[in-house]
Amino acid sequence: MKLEMICTGEEVLAGQIVDTNAAWFASTMMEHGIECQRRVTVGDRLEDLVSVFEERSHHADIILVNGGLGPTSDDLSTEAMAITKGEVLVENSVWRERLEDWFTRNGRVMAASNLKQALLPASALMIDNPVGTACGFAVKHNRAWFFFTPGVPFEFKQMVVEQFIPFVKQHFNITGDVALRKYLTLGQGESALADELEKIELPEGTTLGYRSSMPHIEIKLFARGKMAIAQLDKVEAQIRFLLGNALVADEKKSLAEEIHSLLVGTGLTLSVAESCTGGMIASQLIDFPGSSSYLDHGLVTYSNESKVKVLGVKPETLDDHGAVSIATVEEMAKGVRAILDSDYALATSGIAGPGGGTDEKPVGTVAIALATKGGVYSQMIRLPRRSRDLVRSLSTAVAFDMLRRELLGEAVIIDYGSIGRFKK
Amino acid sequence: MKLEMICTGEEVLAGQIVDTNAAWFASTMMEHGIECQRRVTVGDRLEDLVSVFEERSHHADIILVNGGLGPTSDDLSTEAMAITKGEVLVENSVWRERLEDWFTRNGRVMAASNLKQALLPASALMIDNPVGTACGFAVKHNRAWFFFTPGVPFEFKQMVVEQFIPFVKQHFNITGDVALRKYLTLGQGESALADELEKIELPEGTTLGYRSSMPHIEIKLFARGKMAIAQLDKVEAQIRFLLGNALVADEKKSLAEEIHSLLVGTGLTLSVAESCTGGMIASQLIDFPGSSSYLDHGLVTYSNESKVKVLGVKPETLDDHGAVSIATVEEMAKGVRAILDSDYALATSGIAGPGGGTDEKPVGTVAIALATKGGVYSQMIRLPRRSRDLVRSLSTAVAFDMLRRELLGEAVIIDYGSIGRFKK
Repeated sequence: MKLEMICTGEEVLAGQIVDTNAAWFASTMMEHGIECQRRVTVGDRLEDLVSVFEERSHHADIILVNGGLGPTSDDLSTEAMAITKGEVLVENSVWRERLEDWFTRNGRVMAASNLKQALLPASALMIDNPVGTACGFAVKHNRAWFFFTPGVPFEFKQMVVEQFIPFVKQHFNITGDVALRKYLTLGQGESALADELEKIELPEGTTLGYRSSMPHIEIKLFARGKMAIAQLDKVEAQIRFLLGNALVADEKKSLAEEIHSLLVGTGLTLSVAESCTGGMIASQLIDFPGSSSYLDHGLVTYSNESKVKVLGVKPETLDDHGAVSIATVEEMAKGVRAILDSDYALATSGIAGPGGGTDEKPVGTVAIALATKGGVYSQMIRLPRRSRDLVRSLSTAVAFDMLRRELLGEAVIIDYGSIGRFKK
Repeated sequence: MKLEMICTGEEVLAGQIVDTNAAWFASTMMEHGIECQRRVTVGDRLEDLVSVFEERSHHADIILVNGGLGPTSDDLSTEAMAITKGEVLVENSVWRERLEDWFTRNGRVMAASNLKQALLPASALMIDNPVGTACGFAVKHNRAWFFFTPGVPFEFKQMVVEQFIPFVKQHFNITGDVALRKYLTLGQGESALADELEKIELPEGTTLGYRSSMPHIEIKLFARGKMAIAQLDKVEAQIRFLLGNALVADEKKSLAEEIHSLLVGTGLTLSVAESCTGGMIASQLIDFPGSSSYLDHGLVTYSNESKVKVLGVKPETLDDHGAVSIATVEEMAKGVRAILDSDYALATSGIAGPGGGTDEKPVGTVAIALATKGGVYSQMIRLPRRSRDLVRSLSTAVAFDMLRRELLGEAVIIDYGSIGRFKK
């Protein structure tokens, strides 16, 4: 079974947007044991679309087409497929009704151009899109099944998971003998991790992959075939041993997700006072529904005045030690915890850059504290000064990891491979 | 002149890395007036590479190939091109010397595998790579010039700018007569915008494009040729007129960027109190270096207790009107502004979902207030309940737009096409 992908859209081809749909699609299919063998990206010209549809129809068994199903004049995928097949476009009455319902439900008037979205090539099978106005469809041409999906990422992803993968499994004989495990790491570079994990003799059918997802490296352990799957636990034990403290979560996309799952439903509460991370700690938690049950508040106290007035940091602490100091960040954590008597509080203060560094405290210097009802833990770390965003996201991750370790009863302050730490 | 790109590498095809080289390349070429017309992404299989080289050699005039020039066994681009041309690989003595120098200079011993990097197809022109061990090369095959570049982004980019673009300009007659303008919109769907802007009769050589960048739609006006460029101002005036309030910024990626540029360096200050947006307002501003000069603090007061204790919201206001109400959000804005006597304050409180809605206040109901030294503006809006993230990002955008309009001396509260508003 040969799978290919065709990405359409001038903005994708012209690089105005980076094609994250393509990467997501290939790695999602990989997790189902299906490799994508070629990807062609074309713009919004009708003749280009027709020529690539015709050409690839002779080479692939199934082709996922992404984009070009919208209502505007540069959305041409449907028309191009009809031309390729030599078919007329026919209004799909089911989808027309859905469109009318959709606009009524959302209290909006349907534009005339939206009616175009109910037109499908005569031989097409309609594919439902429960979350948008572009319906998908599937058409067989020459050797290939073409499966058309909308470009909007959340509509696309839902359609792939709920419709495309079952469609592929139904039409082709896909064995499900694949397994994937994911490990989230913090504080080691990709090459350092790879050097370490190369010590493992991987059983046949087993591969290790690395994916950089700033500030984390995600490690993927993939096994194909019953024999390889049977040995996964053994391989995993070796990975855990070799990773040590760098391993911060299993099967999670971020430390925020890990913290959310550790706190939600426990009755424990958290307050956050952020300076350099600027709301990133609170914001990453608030992404998860239900976070209001444990997150009391998250205060971004950017100015010294705010640290004094809102958190009760002593002016003389700021004068004597500076805003980026163990003393200040400890008072921030204790202060924000006290306001609502939360169980835990995190506080950060640092120099995210690009300006603001000194010889003593260069860009990338960040103080982080965790206050509990019993006391306060703190450290001052030195992060790579590569970018403002990296300093902020690494600081956020280290703060979460301190809380994670406390919640699991482990030592709160540890050494990470590639993150420096100032002596107290 | 027809330009295409071939991206190679299993990790790009399989989505383990997102192909940022491709997006960068296409948009860089676009700035030089050269459109990339197709992009094919293939893995590291020799037969796939040979087949795509042969195939595209009949269709394009120039093909940039990225990746597969490294020293390892899965770097096969050079070998594949030699097979395609039916040529042998020949050691390039200039590059061999450069390799030896390079390793000596970096104090490292050259691995035997690196010698492979001095092998080029017999008819290839060597292309210098001053910053790495992979040399580029150019080969003519059938209709096309193939231009091979390394996958490492900073080596790739330097080679494109210093070698590839001059190569293209030397071999083909390229005029640089292109111009691009961008407009950021809020509150109208893509199809509604397109319906409106279709009224404009575009001069020849002028195209309009739409790009969804939640919660905004970006409109791109592209002109090719002296005549089209000369008429851009006239077209732009029509766009401005037709967009009306939906147009919120020019040449900016987000309203946060617009607000940042309006506030930075003015001495004006801003405080933020967020509930449903959960730090997104503050966080989007803090992404910009220099935001500390105007952002006093951003308080995420998620719980009612926190609204009372930190912001001074009256408990009876919460009891009488609820947390999501005009009365509460006005007290939040006034409260957070007063703490540090900031010039402006924004406050949000709403139901981001998926749970927590009622008949009277369904998911998507959001109250937003802007407090100034002179008074307070507020509104309660009703957003599409499609996703928690959309509710939060639209609320953030509307809040920014209220502040933007105030800073520009325009009416603060307006109607947006697709955003409902509750009567007070």
